[in-house]
Amino acid sequence: MTPGPVPRRVAVIGTGLIGTSAALALRRLGTDVRLWDRDPAAAALAADLGAGRVLSSLDSLESPADLALIAVPPADVAAVLGTAQRAALADCYTDVASVKALPLAQARDAGCDISRYVPGHPLAGRERSGPAAARADLFLGRAWALCPAAETSGEAMGKATALVRACGAELVVTDAETHDRWVALVSHAPHVVAAAMAARLAPESVPAEALSLAGQGLRDATRIAVGDVALWTQILTGNAAPVTAVLADVAASLTDIALDLAEIAENGSPAPPASKAGPAEASSSEAGQHLAALLEQGRTGVARIPGKHGGPARPFTAVQVVISDRPGELARLFTTAAEADVNIEDVGIEHSPGQPVGVAELSVRPESAGTLIAALAAGGWPVRR
Amino acid sequence: MTPGPVPRRVAVIGTGLIGTSAALALRRLGTDVRLWDRDPAAAALAADLGAGRVLSSLDSLESPADLALIAVPPADVAAVLGTAQRAALADCYTDVASVKALPLAQARDAGCDISRYVPGHPLAGRERSGPAAARADLFLGRAWALCPAAETSGEAMGKATALVRACGAELVVTDAETHDRWVALVSHAPHVVAAAMAARLAPESVPAEALSLAGQGLRDATRIAVGDVALWTQILTGNAAPVTAVLADVAASLTDIALDLAEIAENGSPAPPASKAGPAEASSSEAGQHLAALLEQGRTGVARIPGKHGGPARPFTAVQVVISDRPGELARLFTTAAEADVNIEDVGIEHSPGQPVGVAELSVRPESAGTLIAALAAGGWPVRR
Repeated sequence: MTPGPVPRRVAVIGTGLIGTSAALALRRLGTDVRLWDRDPAAAALAADLGAGRVLSSLDSLESPADLALIAVPPADVAAVLGTAQRAALADCYTDVASVKALPLAQARDAGCDISRYVPGHPLAGRERSGPAAARADLFLGRAWALCPAAETSGEAMGKATALVRACGAELVVTDAETHDRWVALVSHAPHVVAAAMAARLAPESVPAEALSLAGQGLRDATRIAVGDVALWTQILTGNAAPVTAVLADVAASLTDIALDLAEIAENGSPAPPASKAGPAEASSSEAGQHLAALLEQGRTGVARIPGKHGGPARPFTAVQVVISDRPGELARLFTTAAEADVNIEDVGIEHSPGQPVGVAELSVRPESAGTLIAALAAGGWPVRR
Repeated sequence: MTPGPVPRRVAVIGTGLIGTSAALALRRLGTDVRLWDRDPAAAALAADLGAGRVLSSLDSLESPADLALIAVPPADVAAVLGTAQRAALADCYTDVASVKALPLAQARDAGCDISRYVPGHPLAGRERSGPAAARADLFLGRAWALCPAAETSGEAMGKATALVRACGAELVVTDAETHDRWVALVSHAPHVVAAAMAARLAPESVPAEALSLAGQGLRDATRIAVGDVALWTQILTGNAAPVTAVLADVAASLTDIALDLAEIAENGSPAPPASKAGPAEASSSEAGQHLAALLEQGRTGVARIPGKHGGPARPFTAVQVVISDRPGELARLFTTAAEADVNIEDVGIEHSPGQPVGVAELSVRPESAGTLIAALAAGGWPVRR
């Protein structure tokens, strides 16, 4: 599909993280953006950030906008769509809620004009929310699903597609039910699974000392569980059937493994030493084999997740440099890299408080690693590939 | 406990990531380190990296070392300890396996001298393994558990403690059974839970398009599931009873939520709009309230996990700067920060391939944020706090 023209006039309803970020992206392209939020302070802040001009009310536009972006929680979409359509706010409408079938059904029930509505869902988010966290590049390279209903017109789809392109997102077209099954699998169920695991850490009977043994793995595995409870309850109850299916499968796997491990605990048949078993026969017991099979399947699943920017993970080479923890060290490091004409694709820094040194890990294209290492070594840096 | 003297002579058995990293840390302090691995190439590589001198065999030392560090998989610990003690390799012994009760029981069964053995477990790891991934600073600020048995002598405990301090780790002393319950909760069960979730993404019936909707949350939540299957099968079957208990609890939570959501799917009572409900009553239905309670508990659990360096998370302030994706930009940015005498604590860079700009997020102490923002703004950088 070729991108349509950039929408000329867009109304954004709901100036949270998603609405304001889309508004900022559109403003960069010269679109006339009007902002409305039920919290006037949020709309005013978005306007201050350059996201557009505040609408005094949903019926205060002189003539309909090309497109209205409804960026409100899932349970509010149908009501807002109805109100906006009655006010003739825009020619066409799309939304950003992370469930699609239920708001669509509610919009039909409320008598909305579905021919002018494209259910949508940008797959972008941050740990922070609200207009202050908004960024024009929030959607760059991220997937943005559009889920046209049977009634949705080509005109509405064209305008929504132009919005997705204007935000720099990757368009994924499917129907609402399929979308909901997919996000149950890749987003909604993982949220509940992480929360169920993290909930085991909550009781006071778990001492702080136990948590002092936590590593980066636990932090990563449970980070998504910090999401807003009211919003996630809405999302999960709004996509109940597909989420149930995934959770039931995960619970069944965990129950099976728990039973297998209970059997091993009782009969005392743990895996034999690695020296006596190849990887394919990590455990001699049937219970151990079930466990190994699940772990293998898990690895296969992880390998199928595309990399950060939507494509397969890019094979950067990491170059590690020991640096002092004081102002100017990083500048000196990056100056050395720049003088060698090497572009740093990503940077990670590890150092402990009170320790005088840390390690900077510079990610570069593999063909640049040699140049960078030579330049750093020549500059006296302790470097390791 | 005050640190004992740095061990003068240490034998490291098993020159993988952990053994070699400890050896490198000890070498920095001048310790005479001897290396042995059942794979001679691994020992030779560790020696090439400066980790010490290779032992031709476990009985080739002229006189016993002060301490032997047994850095082999859990199921091999008891056998290696027995062999090393028969060869009089060292005065005292410790190991690094991530389960403690089973190797200790196996060592007792094998007739090892437990008075000279301190079961140990450094909580450090990387996504990479092997001696090439080793770093002298791998343990800096990380927890390192020592789990003395009833028979363990004060001398052995003193030497193992000195090793932990020499590696820059934080000592946690407990017994083997308590250690195993704690790591089941913060490491072993989370691994299985992540694998069980990731396994749902593996079947070919899940289209690649579904996975294109995956975000950073799914990547983070499943990353730990890529661990080595044979080693993890050994770890999990070696800590079967405590892991079973946690998995059974998580499975029960997920089953409950699945049933609640199935009821909601059937009766069609999703959460009301946010505009009509406060966060405390996100869902009017009992099923929705169960779900919200689990999500709240999950948030509480996550909040209890200490920050990256072992203490509570440090409250850095993030300053965002839009940068061009070309050599020299980061150098210019860090030079500006250095000239303002602001220390950058951490850096994150986000940019999409083919896009001319990205966003650098600089983490600084809150009291430095104003200075940095002013300096960057004066330097013409588009900056946002």
